[in-house]
Amino acid sequence: MTEYRFAGGSGGEWRVIGMTCLCGAALPPAAKLDVTTPAPGATNEANPAWVLRGVVSNVRYATGREVSELRRRQAGLGRPEARHAALIPIRKTPAWWSLAQDERRAIFEETSRHTAIGMEYLPAVARRLHHSRDLGEPFDFLTWFEFAPEDSPAFDHMLTRLRTTAEWTYVDREIDIRLERVPVTQPPAP
Amino acid sequence: MTEYRFAGGSGGEWRVIGMTCLCGAALPPAAKLDVTTPAPGATNEANPAWVLRGVVSNVRYATGREVSELRRRQAGLGRPEARHAALIPIRKTPAWWSLAQDERRAIFEETSRHTAIGMEYLPAVARRLHHSRDLGEPFDFLTWFEFAPEDSPAFDHMLTRLRTTAEWTYVDREIDIRLERVPVTQPPAP
Repeated sequence: MTEYRFAGGSGGEWRVIGMTCLCGAALPPAAKLDVTTPAPGATNEANPAWVLRGVVSNVRYATGREVSELRRRQAGLGRPEARHAALIPIRKTPAWWSLAQDERRAIFEETSRHTAIGMEYLPAVARRLHHSRDLGEPFDFLTWFEFAPEDSPAFDHMLTRLRTTAEWTYVDREIDIRLERVPVTQPPAP
Repeated sequence: MTEYRFAGGSGGEWRVIGMTCLCGAALPPAAKLDVTTPAPGATNEANPAWVLRGVVSNVRYATGREVSELRRRQAGLGRPEARHAALIPIRKTPAWWSLAQDERRAIFEETSRHTAIGMEYLPAVARRLHHSRDLGEPFDFLTWFEFAPEDSPAFDHMLTRLRTTAEWTYVDREIDIRLERVPVTQPPAP
């Protein structure tokens, strides 16, 4: 399992251009975000304002057909034109987690069309999901998105649609952190 | 998330009466097992031979109907007559984890009848499942069972049935640790 660590503070290759707390407790402000895959126990940087951890794990709801379609359509992370990013930590209610697997799947997809909605924004919006709940973290998921600046309105539209679904009535903490890649500084010509 | 820690060593309230490695690498021998729910970073005891960690998490495959039936039939842990226990750490193959949710569910229940088989042994065999995969542990699951000594043959029969299912072709490491509760020592009469 690859663990990703997202440290908000004064260092990192992503500049924070906005932090919106949609529900639940906010996170302290941070100027930059450092994204790393550190060794267990390592720290990202000196004194970050906050650190969120998550692992890339197995698929929890998608069917074989949906996974194939996602793989066929989606773009990878790190595209040069994808200079904007978003980190959206989410926590769901105890009522959500006490549901059985078929009950959660029914709300997630048959009712709320989570995967189907996300699919409409591929390949413009690239995405990686990190699971945090079993790690005892304050959020259950950390979703990372990368897109070109001109696709920001489409990304906002996608979030608006998802946030009005039945699934989102089970979200009790959500923070929307918008980021811009820090340009690589060229060394001065000799 | 409650994290449970299982430490094999010289201390604890369970005496190891057998350790069988069914596939994959064995664990070092241990005389006793210490089961705790420690604070993060705490250690169970001085120098255990091994420590396995897992969290009680949400249901991954069971339907609402199956969860209701399990809750109706199952006994709790800690019954005085349940003086025998088993800890069975299991790891599944990368091929299993790369399957989509519906594909894993189909093998788990529609083909292998995992929940249905386990249900037949309720309430004699009490059970608690711990998830370890997202924690980066060497096993994916740690299952804890408690039963009366006279129910040992039924417990063995259940395991034999499960181990011959299609689901078990995806298991690449499994250790069967059998335990007996250490009698509480009475202080000598004054």
